[in-house]
Amino acid sequence: MSAKNLRVVLARPLSSGVPSAEDFRLAEAPVPEPREGEFLVRHVYLSLDPYQRPAMAGRHGGGHGPLGAGDMPSAETVGQVVKSRHPAFPEGAWVRHFGGWQAFSVSDGTQAYLVDPRRAPLSAYLGVLGMPGLTAWASAVRLADVKAGQTVLVSAAAGPVGATFGQIAMQRGARAVGIAGSDEKCALVTGTYRFSACLNYKQPGFADALRAAAGEGFDVYHDNVGGPMLVDALKVLRNYGTVVLCGMMAEYNTAPEERSFCFPMALPVLKRAVLKGLVVYDFEPQRDAFFAEVAPWVASGAIRVAEDRAEGLALAGAHFGRLMRGENVGKALVVVGPE
Amino acid sequence: MSAKNLRVVLARPLSSGVPSAEDFRLAEAPVPEPREGEFLVRHVYLSLDPYQRPAMAGRHGGGHGPLGAGDMPSAETVGQVVKSRHPAFPEGAWVRHFGGWQAFSVSDGTQAYLVDPRRAPLSAYLGVLGMPGLTAWASAVRLADVKAGQTVLVSAAAGPVGATFGQIAMQRGARAVGIAGSDEKCALVTGTYRFSACLNYKQPGFADALRAAAGEGFDVYHDNVGGPMLVDALKVLRNYGTVVLCGMMAEYNTAPEERSFCFPMALPVLKRAVLKGLVVYDFEPQRDAFFAEVAPWVASGAIRVAEDRAEGLALAGAHFGRLMRGENVGKALVVVGPE
Repeated sequence: MSAKNLRVVLARPLSSGVPSAEDFRLAEAPVPEPREGEFLVRHVYLSLDPYQRPAMAGRHGGGHGPLGAGDMPSAETVGQVVKSRHPAFPEGAWVRHFGGWQAFSVSDGTQAYLVDPRRAPLSAYLGVLGMPGLTAWASAVRLADVKAGQTVLVSAAAGPVGATFGQIAMQRGARAVGIAGSDEKCALVTGTYRFSACLNYKQPGFADALRAAAGEGFDVYHDNVGGPMLVDALKVLRNYGTVVLCGMMAEYNTAPEERSFCFPMALPVLKRAVLKGLVVYDFEPQRDAFFAEVAPWVASGAIRVAEDRAEGLALAGAHFGRLMRGENVGKALVVVGPE
Repeated sequence: MSAKNLRVVLARPLSSGVPSAEDFRLAEAPVPEPREGEFLVRHVYLSLDPYQRPAMAGRHGGGHGPLGAGDMPSAETVGQVVKSRHPAFPEGAWVRHFGGWQAFSVSDGTQAYLVDPRRAPLSAYLGVLGMPGLTAWASAVRLADVKAGQTVLVSAAAGPVGATFGQIAMQRGARAVGIAGSDEKCALVTGTYRFSACLNYKQPGFADALRAAAGEGFDVYHDNVGGPMLVDALKVLRNYGTVVLCGMMAEYNTAPEERSFCFPMALPVLKRAVLKGLVVYDFEPQRDAFFAEVAPWVASGAIRVAEDRAEGLALAGAHFGRLMRGENVGKALVVVGPE
C-alpha cells in the first residue's frame, strides 16, 4: 500500500488539566504491513471514552506510563480487515479491537473479536454493545443484581454507560432516575431513554430535587463520576443499599496530589451501604452472555443510546475535549472512514 | 435509700481533641427511685468504648447533640437489680443496660437484658459477649462470611472487637493477622489470642511487613480505625476481597472540618473490593444466635479477651483518655462496685 496512515498524537504531555483541541496534532506514518499471524484493519469508528484521560497521564490500572508529545492514545475501534495473515480474521471481516487514534492498525488478534453488522449497527459495538454496555450490564446484572420494584440512580445518565445501566434496570422491572449536566442531556434521558426522572446537577435546588426523587431512598447507585456527587448519592441511598463504584470522571483530569475532595468514610457506615468496585475487563469472559441478553433489546428498540459523532480524525482532539468538559450528548464517536 | 449516687460528668464540652482526666469531674446526685414499670440497678462494671467519644461531641448516628459541662456520658453497664417495680427484672437479677458513667441508674427495660453470671464472667457481657463481641461476630459471620483457608486482617487487634473478630475467624478455619499500636499489644495478640502474626504499625518498616504478611493478599479486612490504615490495608487486599467498615478511631477525636485525610476512592475500584458498612445495633435481633455460637467458645477458652481495668469511678476519665490514646491493653472497663 502506498497510502499514508493518518493518526492523532499528543502535542504535549497531559499530566493534568482538561484537554482541548490544541493538545493534539495530526501525524502521518506509513500504513503498516501485517506479518504472519497478523491482520490490517481500516478503521470506520473510533470510540472516545473518559477512561482514556487517566491513561494519557499514566494513571490507570496496569499498563503504560504517561504519554509524551508525539505518542498516540489507545482506543477501541471498529473496522474492516483489509489484509490478513491470520486465519480467524479474514479479509472483509468486521472487527472490534484497540486500534488507537488512527486510520489503520495491525493486530495479532489480542483483545480483538469479530462483529456482525447485520445484528446491530457497527457503531453500537463501541457503545451499548461494546465496553460501555458491558460495564452497565456487569453493574446492573452481576454486581447490583437489580430487582423488580427497586429504584436505581445513575450519574452521567446521558452517556452510554449510564443510559444502558438505567435501561437494563428498567428491563428488569426497576424504576430509573438519572443525573446529568444539562437540561438537553436530561431531555435525552427522559425522552429517548425513557427514565422516570432526570436531574440536572448544575441547577440550583439539585440536592432538594434529588431527595424528592429518592422517595424512601434509592436501592442502587451506579457511580460514574466519584467526587462530591458520590456523597450526594449516598445521602439519599436507603440503608443497606448498593453502590457500584465504576467511573471517576471527577478525578480523571487531576493528579492525585491536586485532589481536594475528601470522602467521608463514616457515611457508608451509617448507611450500612455495600460498595463494590467494578473493572469492566473482569467481565470480558462473560461477553457472550452480555451480548445474548442485551443485543435483542437493542434490535427491538427496547434499549436505545444516542450518539454524538465527529466526522474525521482531524476533529478527534476537539471532540475528546468536549467529552471531558461534559459537552457531548450521547456516546462520543469519531467517524474515521466510510462503512 | 439515703446513699448518694456518684457519677462522672464532663468538665467542659469536648467538640474535638483527645480527652484526658481533667476533662471530667465527679458529681453527686440522689439515688433515683424506680417508678411503676422501672427498676434500680447498682452498677458493677462500666464499659469504656471508642464510640463514646463521637457521642460526647454529638457526632454519631441519630441521638443526642453534643454533651455540655455537667452532662454525663452514656455507656453500657452490668449490674444487679436492687429495687424493682418491673416484673421482668426482679430484685437480685443481673442486667446489662445503658446505665451511664455512674454508680446507680433506673431503667424501664429499654435496651436492657438479663445476664447469667454462671454462664460467663459478668464483665464478659461488656466485651466478648457484649457489644464488641456482637460487632465482631456480625462482621466475621454475617457480613464477611469468613471461610476456612482464608486470611483475615484486623486493625486494633488487641481490643475486644479486633480480638474477637480474629478468634472467630480462626474458629472458622481462617488465618488471622492483627495490627496494633505497641509491641506489648502485639504480644497479647499473638500470645493470648493466638493470631498467626501481629504488626506494630508504629514500627518503621510496617508497610513492608504488612506486604510480607499478606502473601497473595488478604481475603477480608475488618476496619476498626479508618484513615490512612484503611488505605494501607486496601493495598494488600486481594482482588475481589471484602472490607468491613466498622470503626473510625482515626476520626473520633476530630471534627469533620479538621480532617485532613482524603480517601482515594479509585483504590477500591482497582481492587474490585466489596466494602460493607457495619452498625452493630442492626444485629441486636440476632443476639441469641451470636450468644449461642460464641458463649461456648468463651466458656471453653477457645476465645479469650484480655481486660484493662480501672478501679473506681474516680478513674473513669483518666482511663477513657488512655483508651483514646491507644494506651489500654485489652477491653477497657471501670470496676464501679463489688460483684
